[in-house]
Amino acid sequence: MSSPTSSATKTMRGLVKSEPAPGLTYDPARQLPRGGQPGPGEVLIRVRKAGICGTDRHIWEWDEWAQGRIPIGIVTGHEFAGVIERLGPGVSHFKPGDRVSGEGHIVTGPDYNSRTGNEHIAREMEVIGIDRDGCFADYLLMPQENVWPLHDSIPDEVGAVMDPLGNAVHTVMEAGVSARSVLVTGVGTIGLMAVSVARAAGASRIFVVDIDEKRLELARRLGADEAFDGRGSREEMLKTIRAATRGEGVDVLLEMSGAEPAIDAGFEALRNGGTAALLGVPSKPTEFNLSKHVIFKGAKVLGIYGRRMFETWYQMEDLVLAGKVELDEIITHEIPLEDFARGFELMQSGDAIKVVMQVSD
Amino acid sequence: MSSPTSSATKTMRGLVKSEPAPGLTYDPARQLPRGGQPGPGEVLIRVRKAGICGTDRHIWEWDEWAQGRIPIGIVTGHEFAGVIERLGPGVSHFKPGDRVSGEGHIVTGPDYNSRTGNEHIAREMEVIGIDRDGCFADYLLMPQENVWPLHDSIPDEVGAVMDPLGNAVHTVMEAGVSARSVLVTGVGTIGLMAVSVARAAGASRIFVVDIDEKRLELARRLGADEAFDGRGSREEMLKTIRAATRGEGVDVLLEMSGAEPAIDAGFEALRNGGTAALLGVPSKPTEFNLSKHVIFKGAKVLGIYGRRMFETWYQMEDLVLAGKVELDEIITHEIPLEDFARGFELMQSGDAIKVVMQVSD
Amino acid sequence: MSSPTSSATKTMRGLVKSEPAPGLTYDPARQLPRGGQPGPGEVLIRVRKAGICGTDRHIWEWDEWAQGRIPIGIVTGHEFAGVIERLGPGVSHFKPGDRVSGEGHIVTGPDYNSRTGNEHIAREMEVIGIDRDGCFADYLLMPQENVWPLHDSIPDEVGAVMDPLGNAVHTVMEAGVSARSVLVTGVGTIGLMAVSVARAAGASRIFVVDIDEKRLELARRLGADEAFDGRGSREEMLKTIRAATRGEGVDVLLEMSGAEPAIDAGFEALRNGGTAALLGVPSKPTEFNLSKHVIFKGAKVLGIYGRRMFETWYQMEDLVLAGKVELDEIITHEIPLEDFARGFELMQSGDAIKVVMQVSD
Amino acid sequence: MSSPTSSATKTMRGLVKSEPAPGLTYDPARQLPRGGQPGPGEVLIRVRKAGICGTDRHIWEWDEWAQGRIPIGIVTGHEFAGVIERLGPGVSHFKPGDRVSGEGHIVTGPDYNSRTGNEHIAREMEVIGIDRDGCFADYLLMPQENVWPLHDSIPDEVGAVMDPLGNAVHTVMEAGVSARSVLVTGVGTIGLMAVSVARAAGASRIFVVDIDEKRLELARRLGADEAFDGRGSREEMLKTIRAATRGEGVDVLLEMSGAEPAIDAGFEALRNGGTAALLGVPSKPTEFNLSKHVIFKGAKVLGIYGRRMFETWYQMEDLVLAGKVELDEIITHEIPLEDFARGFELMQSGDAIKVVMQVSD
Repeated sequence: MSSPTSSATKTMRGLVKSEPAPGLTYDPARQLPRGGQPGPGEVLIRVRKAGICGTDRHIWEWDEWAQGRIPIGIVTGHEFAGVIERLGPGVSHFKPGDRVSGEGHIVTGPDYNSRTGNEHIAREMEVIGIDRDGCFADYLLMPQENVWPLHDSIPDEVGAVMDPLGNAVHTVMEAGVSARSVLVTGVGTIGLMAVSVARAAGASRIFVVDIDEKRLELARRLGADEAFDGRGSREEMLKTIRAATRGEGVDVLLEMSGAEPAIDAGFEALRNGGTAALLGVPSKPTEFNLSKHVIFKGAKVLGIYGRRMFETWYQMEDLVLAGKVELDEIITHEIPLEDFARGFELMQSGDAIKVVMQVSD
Repeated sequence: MSSPTSSATKTMRGLVKSEPAPGLTYDPARQLPRGGQPGPGEVLIRVRKAGICGTDRHIWEWDEWAQGRIPIGIVTGHEFAGVIERLGPGVSHFKPGDRVSGEGHIVTGPDYNSRTGNEHIAREMEVIGIDRDGCFADYLLMPQENVWPLHDSIPDEVGAVMDPLGNAVHTVMEAGVSARSVLVTGVGTIGLMAVSVARAAGASRIFVVDIDEKRLELARRLGADEAFDGRGSREEMLKTIRAATRGEGVDVLLEMSGAEPAIDAGFEALRNGGTAALLGVPSKPTEFNLSKHVIFKGAKVLGIYGRRMFETWYQMEDLVLAGKVELDEIITHEIPLEDFARGFELMQSGDAIKVVMQVSD
Repeated sequence: MSSPTSSATKTMRGLVKSEPAPGLTYDPARQLPRGGQPGPGEVLIRVRKAGICGTDRHIWEWDEWAQGRIPIGIVTGHEFAGVIERLGPGVSHFKPGDRVSGEGHIVTGPDYNSRTGNEHIAREMEVIGIDRDGCFADYLLMPQENVWPLHDSIPDEVGAVMDPLGNAVHTVMEAGVSARSVLVTGVGTIGLMAVSVARAAGASRIFVVDIDEKRLELARRLGADEAFDGRGSREEMLKTIRAATRGEGVDVLLEMSGAEPAIDAGFEALRNGGTAALLGVPSKPTEFNLSKHVIFKGAKVLGIYGRRMFETWYQMEDLVLAGKVELDEIITHEIPLEDFARGFELMQSGDAIKVVMQVSD
Repeated sequence: MSSPTSSATKTMRGLVKSEPAPGLTYDPARQLPRGGQPGPGEVLIRVRKAGICGTDRHIWEWDEWAQGRIPIGIVTGHEFAGVIERLGPGVSHFKPGDRVSGEGHIVTGPDYNSRTGNEHIAREMEVIGIDRDGCFADYLLMPQENVWPLHDSIPDEVGAVMDPLGNAVHTVMEAGVSARSVLVTGVGTIGLMAVSVARAAGASRIFVVDIDEKRLELARRLGADEAFDGRGSREEMLKTIRAATRGEGVDVLLEMSGAEPAIDAGFEALRNGGTAALLGVPSKPTEFNLSKHVIFKGAKVLGIYGRRMFETWYQMEDLVLAGKVELDEIITHEIPLEDFARGFELMQSGDAIKVVMQVSD
């Protein structure tokens, strides 16, 4: 299945953040990470497909967050599927040729969370494509602990989006949606995935609100019972939701927008004693009515970051293998690595939902 | 134990909110509720002791909240211990002479929460002393569902503060403090109780922050390992907390102040993956950093309202009977009903922590 | 919708356990309960449809359990849908004409569980049709606390089986099946319902074992991915289950048989750290390998009795309204009350799964 | 703090299971593990103190279990405190001289549990001193993942018993004892530790049953409110427990005996809806009344194996540092390694509770 790099292979193609300015540079002859020789416990992965994330767009656009976080010179990208190319000393869980995806959050020091099954919120970690070299390149280096074996029945393009799918699954599963009514505020890529996942995970009724009519329509096809246009009347929305939930409001809020008005409306729609799982990241401190939305309601609010290593990955695998998660309409474009600029344009224009780049065969 | 009201008894003493202005009116000849005849499922309770709550002070001071909520003419007060005086038709759980306390939140209509063991956050309810006649009077009427039998070994003055003690116990138990480090932000009456309860419930280390040196000192006596003056350096406080918690921050935040800076500092002190239980009520929407404090931390935030009916009451009883909760220094004053004005002054001056009024023998 | 009993109506039809022997007696002129006048907090319900339960069959056959439990002279039956006929004093949640079902477990004294939202496992309770008069009659008396309002979109025959459906839903929801693999051991009526409910509640993969080929076939149609004949090789079954679950075994066991070999096989199929929910009642103490099945596995075992009052009922309503639960093939027969003997024969022969009797219009 | 082995050191002292017969052989010149050179990710630890476990006694006595499990030729022992002597390649969390203890369960292959924070119940693992060389020797080899840094304030003898203390803490914390009544059945070493831990973790009331009067007396000193002699009347015991728990029975059962009558009595004492955590290992399948003890009670039963890696270790550290766990009367004897035979005799005679061997300085 694999054709290992000959010892002559020393360079690769890669998309590099080479300057403190918008855009990425295509480097046709980037040095392989560690010269292609994985260290102890590491594996070298040949990337086959890689997804473009909203975070990559921030890096591309070189916004304030990116300027404060991204080191100049790194290869970007963190969503991928590939093949194990070479093993470092002491690697026991994988062999060359294994199809894999991987978790981009690499723990760099032991702490309470990393030693108690909560590596995803460890204090010291590096994210591939953000803090260190990522997957928009022919090869990628990772500790074996971060690698996930791709099931034979899961195709590369799905493997390439397990990172954002994992965000959706983690949010849905932490909240708990089985036999419950759910409101998803914001149906960008992850919000749309969350609709499909919530349906698969047993939600009894799904409401969605967004301001993009095309995505609302897609959300309906993915399983939303009602999709509201956020530019319309909030009172009408609340009335409809309450009428469908014995006057109570929804059991579960999945907040995927990071937008203050959506957060406020979402909490208003939540019933007393309900659960809110927050994945969308407000870009700054917001006005928030803790008394009304959380305290008087006796609500439970869960901050969601990344995805569990690896409980979420097992859940994803099971949901995908059960044929219960619909990704065909979410992965809207597949393009060659070299067309990366078009990929970012498709995202910026809103024409694409998820763009996957073909990196190698 | 009881000397039932003779059929001649038609009036009682009571503290009434008789005008839309500060203060309360002492009425020596208030009509008994329902003329002293409980309806189906109700009981008439002779009040022996009653606690003055911070909420009563809002009513006394006639602040904005009170003006919007309190109906003119009601008897105020909701913390009490007393004796069952008379039973309405169909009452089976109690008999005249039983010593009791009671839960002031009276459910007035069936809904999801009231039918699933979460009566404390039911949508339709009336609170005694706030929405209907309360316990600052010789007699009080309640449905038997709201009455709590006082254990022989629990004295009246403790029974009279089970309402605020229940707030503290509910907060501590929802958060879960067993073998965990805890920060209590704000040690008013309930915050001080929470220190003692957290110690009793198995917290491994307790930190406290407030701006009243006398209460900080009391918090230390009640079991706080460190008590910080909130007017001092936040960085110093965080440094001390982190040094004592492997650099992580506390496992649990119990927010008892409702003050924006304390909320912000409390969340900053919380470790990744920690739990925050919020009881203190901010008086208006606050600036809140959801991203930093909740989402990136993977934190769990619990809104706390009232106390569980009656899981919290059982927990209180067990903790008090185990001799693990210290209330002697918290109940600072006992005064006769007629001296109510002095009680409110003691609270306003900060000289008292909890004032209990002796209503009858 | 209702035609209240005229004050002249004093008798009704009813199926009575009139003698300590097999069978039931049809009484055409049974006195109405309390003479048709509900006490404080009670309602009189006109029964429209009533389901025959396995428990009713024990009573019919007058087995050892029935001889030890059932008082001679009671009306039997505990699964029903009907219409509110008359209200006792103090009833506020219902009005005559309301379509209802109801929870047959009537709490008779306050205790820890009945005051903490766990009425279903209260120490003191009476079950209709077992400890006191039940629903195989024209009229039934109940406290309003036990009555469940039937949603307009839920037909009487579904209302008449909410009791056993509630057993299935309670078992599935306590275990938690969202994105998990599930094994159901024993697909009698409740086991079959559990298959459909587990599918609806988000199970990723469902295995079933039983010894009745017809029911295995039905289980497949209701959503089982694999249905094993329990008379075949246990090793083959375990091999198939493990092959489909990464070698681990199932995440969840729903034990619905009460049979020792099925319990043993079920636990053997459970993965380390898995959850077993036990509803099937072994008729006597069994040989059980606590070390292998529970301790070394780090398993969680949940005893399931009845159904939550009323969390389970809300979940049922939501699942049924979502169109996710399939009952058409489970309710195999509807017969008039007078044909009750045939109903019991159909159950004994195995020709029927669930028999519902039409009691009144 | 450490004096690294000179390169000349090639042998060490060790207690070896050299023959398939009772006893252990003292080998004064055992080869160091891997010749004293740790492999990638491994560390070499110089053992300072080592505890003798009940499991070691099974190995010593060469009972049926030991005959089936223990490979001839291994060094035994799995409870220890020591000092890091040498690091293998890629070790980053420790440095020579660090004082450490360690978790004896070494995961040998990736599986669901080992990748989801539940390494303690992984399917593939080797235990030191049972499946591979252990700590009854001067040196011990371990992956760094299994090593636990000993806090400066925790002495070696406590470090040497963190393995059994961890069993106690894991059992107590899984069950959840905060503000709850607890029954401990069986107060061997771990049962006694559990009494102290339950007290520290917030139990409101602790009952104990055993058949050794001396241990019952010690249990009382460690915090048991009542200690019953199991040879006395079960009815009396149940009566006393129920009288102290509102007639309900205990909230929590911690089963530490593995003995059928104790298990049966323990479950009988458990209230409806209570939690039983089972650590004691019955040596064979037992007669168990699933219906009465689990199903009708709606009980939750938790199988407890080992201890969480490393949540339990953090909890232990916090409880010990809080000064809340009493071990002085539990560690009854400290002897030199060479006196090991006496150590086993002390355990067999019942004179000792926990024996710790001094291995090196």
